[in-house]
Amino acid sequence: MKKIKLRVPATVANLVCGFDILGMAIHEPYDEMEFKLLDTPEIIIKHKDSFDLPEDPSKNVAGIVLLKIQENLQLTNGFEVTIHKHIKPGSGLGSSAASAAGAALGANALLGNILSKDEMVHFAMFGEELASGVRHADNIAPCIYGGITLVKSTTPIDIIPLNAPDLFVTAVHPQVEVKTSDSRQILKKSISLKSAVEQWGNIAGLVAGIQKNDIPLIGRSLNDVIIEPVRSILIPKFDEIKKESLAMGALGGGISGSGPSIFMLSETKETAEKIAVLMKTIYDKINIESYVYVSKINPIGIEVIEENL
Amino acid sequence: MKKIKLRVPATVANLVCGFDILGMAIHEPYDEMEFKLLDTPEIIIKHKDSFDLPEDPSKNVAGIVLLKIQENLQLTNGFEVTIHKHIKPGSGLGSSAASAAGAALGANALLGNILSKDEMVHFAMFGEELASGVRHADNIAPCIYGGITLVKSTTPIDIIPLNAPDLFVTAVHPQVEVKTSDSRQILKKSISLKSAVEQWGNIAGLVAGIQKNDIPLIGRSLNDVIIEPVRSILIPKFDEIKKESLAMGALGGGISGSGPSIFMLSETKETAEKIAVLMKTIYDKINIESYVYVSKINPIGIEVIEENL
Repeated sequence: MKKIKLRVPATVANLVCGFDILGMAIHEPYDEMEFKLLDTPEIIIKHKDSFDLPEDPSKNVAGIVLLKIQENLQLTNGFEVTIHKHIKPGSGLGSSAASAAGAALGANALLGNILSKDEMVHFAMFGEELASGVRHADNIAPCIYGGITLVKSTTPIDIIPLNAPDLFVTAVHPQVEVKTSDSRQILKKSISLKSAVEQWGNIAGLVAGIQKNDIPLIGRSLNDVIIEPVRSILIPKFDEIKKESLAMGALGGGISGSGPSIFMLSETKETAEKIAVLMKTIYDKINIESYVYVSKINPIGIEVIEENL
Repeated sequence: MKKIKLRVPATVANLVCGFDILGMAIHEPYDEMEFKLLDTPEIIIKHKDSFDLPEDPSKNVAGIVLLKIQENLQLTNGFEVTIHKHIKPGSGLGSSAASAAGAALGANALLGNILSKDEMVHFAMFGEELASGVRHADNIAPCIYGGITLVKSTTPIDIIPLNAPDLFVTAVHPQVEVKTSDSRQILKKSISLKSAVEQWGNIAGLVAGIQKNDIPLIGRSLNDVIIEPVRSILIPKFDEIKKESLAMGALGGGISGSGPSIFMLSETKETAEKIAVLMKTIYDKINIESYVYVSKINPIGIEVIEENL
């Protein structure tokens, strides 16, 4: 029986000034997904975790992606998927994108790699639609492509893979709930042209810095004058964590996705680990449980860890 | 006597979606500037052209730059500059920036190259201030650095040189007056977040395309949803010229600076020249005199054509 096991990474969308366009894959946390190709047309979803996610394929993020692939490709085969989810739903670290992108890539591998990356993105977006009502690729794109990606458009799909600078990422997930819907509603519908120009100068600088591997330029460009000042008020201790992280040597950082996770980029593992301790300490003090992850920017995205094809 | 002769190129600021941040040097049109280092502290400006520009150094764009350099460096020397201006003032092709940047680079060469590029930009901005009231570097930066530049900040000066893709530029200067002040006042002070996100996706795509030398990506990103729809109404036949140029194979283009010049980028000289004929024909039909220039993106900026140092 054809089978494959994947390591599917967390992702950081809305990369500081790159609201709605830039996303980044990291190494930690990650989900594990095991796929079997079935001779019968069933889609079977098994969750080996404690998040109580639905196992009915039409209500499951991975399941809906597999159903769409099966339908679109008129397959007589089915799939069994066992998901060990470690990326917590609602963390802002791309939990639903991991299930969706993992499903698309796993099915594709079992079918002999007949889909392009953009076709996998296309199918995976049905999972995001189920999870949040929006067919976006902000997290799916870096999960499938690896590194840092620019989602220039989803209709048609136009994903631009950028370089993956050799930087460390510290991410903290405080156990508070920030609803994506609240996080979106709080945004102003109009902004000043002056702020917009400042923002696009930073975006241009960030993309140039990533492509030129100019780390100080990346640092100078990690500045969001539009979204972060509004959204960060929903995240306890955001300002303190950011200020202290920068003082410790972080290049910059911000809200991961629509929160509540926060991430910081650093040039060295030492700095990234110091920042991890700082983040945990700050949340411990106010009795908010938190999970902290340190890893590098992930240039690969989803990785195959076992296969029998 | 130390002397130097420079070829100082026209520049295109506000590069489509890169309003206020991206500029590009071209080869045609260009000014010629001849400098002599004087033993006496005079600043002498001579204009060998028909634009009736002031020759009093404190009222002349090149003159004010030389005065500032002289004052700041406490020079006992002076300069004589003869300017053959071919870039028409008010064209939107960086005429004042050419005088200002040329003055900074010419003086620097005569003084033994003691200034950095950013210091030259600093001094040249006094010329732009005299010309337009604003100390901007949108045209000065590409004139001094060459190629395409990102002006991330002017306080402090933070110029990021980008690559210069191997593309042809067609620029047309219709003989109509568009005042920079009108062109600025017509802009909306606030814009929708939705348009801003679309714009910064295009900017990110354009910078990525330039750095990756991905010409189709550059083409897909040359799209300004904020400034052009408003400003282009001040420029006769803008929409027709753009539409027809794209139909002829242009990658994209838009308003040069704040107009009235229009530019288009093409992959081949043949396409660029066809577009030149098109532009001229369209303006001839409505009895607007126009000047058309075809050249490549200029990777060097200002060039020394004669020197005796």
